Amino acid sequence: MSSVIVAMALYTDFGAGDHYQGQMRAVLHSRLPSMPVFDLMTQAPRCQPKAAGYLLAAILCDVPDRTMVVAVVDPGVGSERQALMIHTERHILLGPDNGLLALAARRAAAVNLYRIDWRPERLSSSFHGRDLFAPVAAMLVTGEAFEATRMACEAMVGWDWPDDLGEVIHVDHYGNLITGIRSSQLPTGRHLHIAGHDIIGARTFSDVPPGRLFWYENSSGLVEIACNGASAAERLRVGVGEGVVLAA
Amino acid sequence: MSSVIVAMALYTDFGAGDHYQGQMRAVLHSRLPSMPVFDLMTQAPRCQPKAAGYLLAAILCDVPDRTMVVAVVDPGVGSERQALMIHTERHILLGPDNGLLALAARRAAAVNLYRIDWRPERLSSSFHGRDLFAPVAAMLVTGEAFEATRMACEAMVGWDWPDDLGEVIHVDHYGNLITGIRSSQLPTGRHLHIAGHDIIGARTFSDVPPGRLFWYENSSGLVEIACNGASAAERLRVGVGEGVVLAA
Amino acid sequence: MSSVIVAMALYTDFGAGDHYQGQMRAVLHSRLPSMPVFDLMTQAPRCQPKAAGYLLAAILCDVPDRTMVVAVVDPGVGSERQALMIHTERHILLGPDNGLLALAARRAAAVNLYRIDWRPERLSSSFHGRDLFAPVAAMLVTGEAFEATRMACEAMVGWDWPDDLGEVIHVDHYGNLITGIRSSQLPTGRHLHIAGHDIIGARTFSDVPPGRLFWYENSSGLVEIACNGASAAERLRVGVGEGVVLAA
Repeated sequence: MSSVIVAMALYTDFGAGDHYQGQMRAVLHSRLPSMPVFDLMTQAPRCQPKAAGYLLAAILCDVPDRTMVVAVVDPGVGSERQALMIHTERHILLGPDNGLLALAARRAAAVNLYRIDWRPERLSSSFHGRDLFAPVAAMLVTGEAFEATRMACEAMVGWDWPDDLGEVIHVDHYGNLITGIRSSQLPTGRHLHIAGHDIIGARTFSDVPPGRLFWYENSSGLVEIACNGASAAERLRVGVGEGVVLAA
Repeated sequence: MSSVIVAMALYTDFGAGDHYQGQMRAVLHSRLPSMPVFDLMTQAPRCQPKAAGYLLAAILCDVPDRTMVVAVVDPGVGSERQALMIHTERHILLGPDNGLLALAARRAAAVNLYRIDWRPERLSSSFHGRDLFAPVAAMLVTGEAFEATRMACEAMVGWDWPDDLGEVIHVDHYGNLITGIRSSQLPTGRHLHIAGHDIIGARTFSDVPPGRLFWYENSSGLVEIACNGASAAERLRVGVGEGVVLAA
Repeated sequence: MSSVIVAMALYTDFGAGDHYQGQMRAVLHSRLPSMPVFDLMTQAPRCQPKAAGYLLAAILCDVPDRTMVVAVVDPGVGSERQALMIHTERHILLGPDNGLLALAARRAAAVNLYRIDWRPERLSSSFHGRDLFAPVAAMLVTGEAFEATRMACEAMVGWDWPDDLGEVIHVDHYGNLITGIRSSQLPTGRHLHIAGHDIIGARTFSDVPPGRLFWYENSSGLVEIACNGASAAERLRVGVGEGVVLAA
């Protein structure tokens, strides 16, 4: 990873309308006034670091080099879980050690993993995004030193998780069901099963008749189940965690 | 349009909480680190480029000159629909040729319309916002050349649509019903009919008693149906597409 | 307050997906291209300036110095309500005189309060955020003069409100119930009553069993009622305005 960060992305489950993302941005903008800071996602799978981690790993493929990602899906905040910093050949990632960053790290060509030991003078028990990760992100950019310890990747939560997750990991604004299965693992002719339905593959929405359920390779390289002109989530009445299996 | 763009606005139906707007911003911030990029709207009428186009045209009146707007409400992505670039005397607009930009173009004093022929090396079938429109926006700012062909305005989808649309085009966060009718076309004393209700005109919320349905000229010059202290959408049980007619 | 503003925060009830926040940003970015502008909150308690004011006052503790906050929760827009500018030792605050800024002003060490008398050439009756407050924010940064009159704090709506508000003031994305009671006023051992339930105190989520309702000091120093692994709002079926009382 080049040492020059050009932009900073926030990936959280804080909700689009709440003040949590804004409080992190307040810290970052005041300390890094000329750094672009943007919301990569505000409604990642809520309190589900595993699902959110599979989604983040897929999205990161198209996030330009030299972007820093501060990721916070952190139901264990306030417990003994560690805080991580990961340098890959393309990005710097900050976030809790709960699996959220594991797949992203696994798929990188080069990984340097650190446990963040630094703590601020005042650390709330429920909002390390604002109190710990945002200040560390700022220090990384300004070049201030802070305490961190090199870790072996194998010590990271989720390092041993499978490459693909046969589950719905996100329901998007259109009601499309994003799965944790990379489409490169699946020939287009193959069918899927979900919630008792048999789902055919197609190239994109305009290739299937209105109202038809299908799966396709989404723009992040994941298998996504959709319905042309309607919400697949409503049609199938399923949500995050629903199992997805390849038809025999 | 002056050649100097001062800010870049994203107008989409991607949803406030999802990662799609963030992925476009990742592309833009990394290529244009000193350009302000902001969300003009993340929940434009979903998959409804016509309604979204009437809303965009109204909003644009108050978007300062020399702003570039990248607009993506694009249910036909992946089909044969064209990609457009429009230079008006005030703005540059990028988006699909599905009517989304038609009213904005029609209301401009000067319009230069181009079909974007350039394609990236890797073009997903479902996300041209990230893969096509964001890179073109960046090239426009940096001055890189890309292929585009001058088009006649009459060839644009929606160029022949009516000036006003007698429908609800958006339901906002307050439950107000924004219509596609410009209030300049309607004397305040005139009544409207919607869903079997007769709606009187007023200047603003504080001019009518709590709970009363009324219409007023909203801040973008459109007729908007509201209810003082409550949601007009809930009271009337209507949504985007509901017909609105002027009382005789 | 130092005269150099480093970032500008928007605190509104406009909704995360709508175009209102974007229209304010369009004004600000075009006039202040190098100023970071960010959404502190887009879904503050809707049309409830009192609840939104208690929340803002708590959040402001952790908003860095020299940030300007433009706050718009403004159901009385278009009526005779005044527009305010407040300089504290840390921030500049702009917003309507309806109590939204009252608690923030009360808790500051130094307060200079002004009524904004300046009006733009074109002032819509329903969107002073775009037409009045955003231009004033820009003029404050660029140093342009505009008309304003010094006011006594006692003349401000809400100046005489209590220090703590025994009500739910916000339901967040996780279903947590944020109250207007500062946790510094409440020993951890103390119980609360809400909606017929008796609520114990705890340090944080990981200190209570899954499914258990509890209250804790949230990251903004307010008493917050939560449920480990679930939504307290759904469990209790309550919303903004629900009364919260300390058990005897």
